[in-house]
Amino acid sequence: MKTKQDFINRLAKMKRNVYYDGQLIDRTDELQMDCIDTIGTTYDEAAKPENADLMIATSHLTGEKINRYTHVHQNKEDLHKKQDMTRMLCQKVGGCIQRCMGIDGTNAIYNVSYEADKVKKGETNYHENFKKWLIRFQQEDLIAACAQTDTKGDRMLRPAEQPNPGSYVRIKERLKDGIVVEGCKVHISEASVADEVIVLPTRALRPEDKDYAVAFAVPADYEGLTQVATIHNFRPREHYKRGFMGGYTDSYMIFDNCFVPWERVFLAGENDHGGICALLFALFHRHSYSGCKPAIGDVILGQAALAAEVNNIHKEPHVREKLAEIIMTIELGYAAGYTASDLGKPEVYIPGMGFVPYGPGSYIPHSIY
Amino acid sequence: MKTKQDFINRLAKMKRNVYYDGQLIDRTDELQMDCIDTIGTTYDEAAKPENADLMIATSHLTGEKINRYTHVHQNKEDLHKKQDMTRMLCQKVGGCIQRCMGIDGTNAIYNVSYEADKVKKGETNYHENFKKWLIRFQQEDLIAACAQTDTKGDRMLRPAEQPNPGSYVRIKERLKDGIVVEGCKVHISEASVADEVIVLPTRALRPEDKDYAVAFAVPADYEGLTQVATIHNFRPREHYKRGFMGGYTDSYMIFDNCFVPWERVFLAGENDHGGICALLFALFHRHSYSGCKPAIGDVILGQAALAAEVNNIHKEPHVREKLAEIIMTIELGYAAGYTASDLGKPEVYIPGMGFVPYGPGSYIPHSIY
Amino acid sequence: MKTKQDFINRLAKMKRNVYYDGQLIDRTDELQMDCIDTIGTTYDEAAKPENADLMIATSHLTGEKINRYTHVHQNKEDLHKKQDMTRMLCQKVGGCIQRCMGIDGTNAIYNVSYEADKVKKGETNYHENFKKWLIRFQQEDLIAACAQTDTKGDRMLRPAEQPNPGSYVRIKERLKDGIVVEGCKVHISEASVADEVIVLPTRALRPEDKDYAVAFAVPADYEGLTQVATIHNFRPREHYKRGFMGGYTDSYMIFDNCFVPWERVFLAGENDHGGICALLFALFHRHSYSGCKPAIGDVILGQAALAAEVNNIHKEPHVREKLAEIIMTIELGYAAGYTASDLGKPEVYIPGMGFVPYGPGSYIPHSIY
Amino acid sequence: MKTKQDFINRLAKMKRNVYYDGQLIDRTDELQMDCIDTIGTTYDEAAKPENADLMIATSHLTGEKINRYTHVHQNKEDLHKKQDMTRMLCQKVGGCIQRCMGIDGTNAIYNVSYEADKVKKGETNYHENFKKWLIRFQQEDLIAACAQTDTKGDRMLRPAEQPNPGSYVRIKERLKDGIVVEGCKVHISEASVADEVIVLPTRALRPEDKDYAVAFAVPADYEGLTQVATIHNFRPREHYKRGFMGGYTDSYMIFDNCFVPWERVFLAGENDHGGICALLFALFHRHSYSGCKPAIGDVILGQAALAAEVNNIHKEPHVREKLAEIIMTIELGYAAGYTASDLGKPEVYIPGMGFVPYGPGSYIPHSIY
Repeated sequence: MKTKQDFINRLAKMKRNVYYDGQLIDRTDELQMDCIDTIGTTYDEAAKPENADLMIATSHLTGEKINRYTHVHQNKEDLHKKQDMTRMLCQKVGGCIQRCMGIDGTNAIYNVSYEADKVKKGETNYHENFKKWLIRFQQEDLIAACAQTDTKGDRMLRPAEQPNPGSYVRIKERLKDGIVVEGCKVHISEASVADEVIVLPTRALRPEDKDYAVAFAVPADYEGLTQVATIHNFRPREHYKRGFMGGYTDSYMIFDNCFVPWERVFLAGENDHGGICALLFALFHRHSYSGCKPAIGDVILGQAALAAEVNNIHKEPHVREKLAEIIMTIELGYAAGYTASDLGKPEVYIPGMGFVPYGPGSYIPHSIY
Repeated sequence: MKTKQDFINRLAKMKRNVYYDGQLIDRTDELQMDCIDTIGTTYDEAAKPENADLMIATSHLTGEKINRYTHVHQNKEDLHKKQDMTRMLCQKVGGCIQRCMGIDGTNAIYNVSYEADKVKKGETNYHENFKKWLIRFQQEDLIAACAQTDTKGDRMLRPAEQPNPGSYVRIKERLKDGIVVEGCKVHISEASVADEVIVLPTRALRPEDKDYAVAFAVPADYEGLTQVATIHNFRPREHYKRGFMGGYTDSYMIFDNCFVPWERVFLAGENDHGGICALLFALFHRHSYSGCKPAIGDVILGQAALAAEVNNIHKEPHVREKLAEIIMTIELGYAAGYTASDLGKPEVYIPGMGFVPYGPGSYIPHSIY
Repeated sequence: MKTKQDFINRLAKMKRNVYYDGQLIDRTDELQMDCIDTIGTTYDEAAKPENADLMIATSHLTGEKINRYTHVHQNKEDLHKKQDMTRMLCQKVGGCIQRCMGIDGTNAIYNVSYEADKVKKGETNYHENFKKWLIRFQQEDLIAACAQTDTKGDRMLRPAEQPNPGSYVRIKERLKDGIVVEGCKVHISEASVADEVIVLPTRALRPEDKDYAVAFAVPADYEGLTQVATIHNFRPREHYKRGFMGGYTDSYMIFDNCFVPWERVFLAGENDHGGICALLFALFHRHSYSGCKPAIGDVILGQAALAAEVNNIHKEPHVREKLAEIIMTIELGYAAGYTASDLGKPEVYIPGMGFVPYGPGSYIPHSIY
Repeated sequence: MKTKQDFINRLAKMKRNVYYDGQLIDRTDELQMDCIDTIGTTYDEAAKPENADLMIATSHLTGEKINRYTHVHQNKEDLHKKQDMTRMLCQKVGGCIQRCMGIDGTNAIYNVSYEADKVKKGETNYHENFKKWLIRFQQEDLIAACAQTDTKGDRMLRPAEQPNPGSYVRIKERLKDGIVVEGCKVHISEASVADEVIVLPTRALRPEDKDYAVAFAVPADYEGLTQVATIHNFRPREHYKRGFMGGYTDSYMIFDNCFVPWERVFLAGENDHGGICALLFALFHRHSYSGCKPAIGDVILGQAALAAEVNNIHKEPHVREKLAEIIMTIELGYAAGYTASDLGKPEVYIPGMGFVPYGPGSYIPHSIY
């Protein structure tokens, strides 16, 4: 397992393809450090013995100890721990921990690539290729962004109907060695500080939309990929310094005739599974929310309770009622995620078909909760 | 285990102490049959092999097979099954199944009597007496009402401050063989069709209120106890008969110099545990709600979906949105109960102290959820 | 102006065409008396000098004093008074006063018939015929039901597309002396105790739907009209008698080859105005709601405040907060109606065109509020 | 009537008593210009002939034409116009227009000073003094901040019970020529760009709190008054410039042994009227909200509708439903204010007494709405 410093060292070596305010910037630019510190917390905390149970998992591919943020869930316990790890870390940074996109995208593609191979009956090798990518991802303890949201053009038209074919990221050309993609993904959190970018579809797709059923992973400074970043740092305080100074970035990602070799392509035309991939990432991500939203609620609750106490109104019935309502909202969200974890199975819910087995056996949260 | 017919036979033999509309009525009066049919469902369904897993438990006292409605929860699985049994049966009767007061009151007193004995350091024998009562309750497969809500008098005054000392049920006199109680309990569901009535406190109690810290069980037709019942039956339909015709009753219960022998008294003056008893019954009962409220939601959902389909509007976005909202409400409630079951322990939450071990080891739902 | 007894005498003379529970009943059947008492309040209160300002208007057609429930609004003041009269009377009967359908339908057709005549450029005489009907309605102080809601068949199809052409009330045949209509109107409040029934369309209509753009008035016991009534009476109380015993009825109305002479037809094919008529009745009726809903809120508020007081909790902050919330809801509804009255004009809002002059000059509430 | 430039010239001549970020700043510092531009709009728009009806009033004291923001409401029409003027101007600046504190504080004191004089039976001359202050305020077309919120100390203690007597602004000493006040007012909007500061109480007061029943007006750069300002400007945009660049300031105001001569004191010890003054300012200010909140809603609505249109989803039912909900919220707020204006009278509502005549005859919005 790696350290925050390893992570920074990797970023320092990357090519400059991130624009901020019209300028190409280094990944370790001062502006990005608050965000890097936030993600860095996932390395620092994993190194503490008291967090080992929550943050360290055993790879089902290599048997090695890995950071849970690179793990594919093998059982209910993994789902519970992911939720609890997320809540614990988000409490520490007082907001989004920013590493869940990687674990959620990874788990989605792990399952979808397996099913997509079945469709093509042996012609494709998506799942094995993804496992190779995943082993390196786990061993190097990498950070992945997950690029889902397309620019979408006219919202009333499906991808293949758009006047501008690049309104959704698509396969522009299929070559012997790989595919050429074009299009943009917008508001992609943490892409400017990620090692890898996982790309997957944003919506249900019809057979006509099959060129839009594409999933792949490329390094974040890859040839043919340009990022335009927005950086959300808090304004610094002169007095009453914050306990933790978190930061966030998101990128507008431009894929301009970007060549992706087959070993990094995990879906290329299987439109049904493209739609499932979109939903599955969203499902894993909502499961992350059941950890991070309660954590943010915890922070708000603590702040509200402190403010009430300082004003000596913490015992007043109307204040207690409001605090109780915050707790109720927090814990209903947590309970939904807890139940989704505990009822998790290697199954997905397909409208009209109910729950059906899906993927090679890794665990998926129950989609109702 | 007994049958619905056994239950009816027992009711038929009881003394007449139930007034309805100014008249003493038999317990098996036609007016009460819809309610008896509802509770009877808990016997009929328990007899079906397919429900054995959910509805039949093994007594931790005798090792015998018993109806789960007489069981004291021994582990998480028992809590999960109680929630799921409640949801299943409430779906069948399209509303309240009306046997949860018994199981919830039983579980509350089972724990509280154990702790109250500790306070008196061997002087009292509440817990052993309760276990004796419980063995018969399980073997005879009895129905218990649970009488909690007092008339309360002036809501701004505590029990001992009330101008009328009987505003809350209290110990009027302590005799060698037992206690004399007086006071009324109001809106006591199903008391008019119950075998036994469990009585317990309704609120937190101060040392001054110790005569109000009283819990006991008496037969529902006991000397010194009079019931005034309200009977809630649906009006019968000539056409489009209901699938199941449920009914409900509740009683105003008058304890008038009612003598209760010590072997049926489970708390008599331990005010701290009186307050915990009130909360614990409420906690178990809220856990029941996490089964019955989703069931009622399921019935409403099915009816709404059917109405939408008949009008051919079930695919309209605004209709689907409303159905989705019903599902969300249902399943958040279920998830809260599920999580409370899964995090259940032999512990209660005491404000200011956190979770502390409580009772002889039976399982209590997690009080946050 | 007439009295409640005049009203009852008229009902007593009507032909029997109302079925209840499979039997033809007299209009003055005991079952209908609670409803008749409710409507009768509008006669009794109008006769009291202290209500003259609110309840008595001057007919713009005859200059005579009339009950406001038969009046066409001539200015803002009339709109304000209608709202306040409704609130006052609904407070008295503790619910719906049941005479607003007549005034709302009357005001809608008064305007629509005027505009519809313009479309046909002199061929039709809807407005003059309606005024003749109205003079008698005012002088005889009659009660009108307003029949709007059709059975509607398949909700995804427009009237003319329905497999059953009678899914919406329609003109089946146009004769020299009048029209023949068929179809049903459902849930028509108070039709079983009304003198007259005003029929108007239920939705926007396309040119293809022109046979469904039909408005007319017939006596409630008219040839070709059958009613199947539902009667909603409270169960009588033995003790604690109600201050006022209100009742409600609604009818399923069947028009079976019902001939309506031209002098009672006020719209017959002008589809645009058919749609406006539907909206206009709804608009006047919502204005009525801004009187009756606050009144019902007032009753609930009084009851809640009384219950709080009896329990000595009326000064507790959480109780006061809840009472304040009821008041806020009540008075926001009243304020919306007040503003709609005060900004009322002889104009309607047509989507895409804004407010345009409409009708012969009577006042219409502002449709935003 | 004056111009925006006159306003700026006045500010330029004021003494430096405003601190920002630890430095004394000029009132016309670049940082304050966005805020000054916002308030300046009230001068610019008043000069336009098309706004004369809404923005120009006739002083009831001098008969001269004045900016409505310096006017005391003389009738319902004035209340309507104040609401509509506020909505119109807030639409123009896309947010708070920041001149309502002055008109609301002025109207509150105008009434309260009149009633307070009655209490002292001729000993005091508050109302005449206030009218003198008001004539200059109107003629010079001045800007006033209204300082209400105190630091409050321990929220469970009343003003006179606070360990620190300066937790609420109070009369420290009564001299022959005037009073000496001390204490702080916090979050006082626009005080750093105001000509005058109106000070009034923040809560109901008991006889023991009479030293806290104090209202007065001083120039914003007065001896003994220091301001610590927070300045809320939007960050400037390089591209897509805003149509109007609004800004806001608020001040922490420190009154340190500040001497106020009697002619500028409008309440000094009349505790009942101190409490009414607090409520009355809040009432007038809430009436302002019924103009500004709808305006902000209008801006949000326009933006939402534009965003929907650009994405071609403005005709989708779920989008229309959301837009309709925004409209409903906006117009309910407007209707509440409209009704409060239209039912306005020279009366205030005193809990337990109902509406009672108050003040010398100027109009007060109806407090329920």
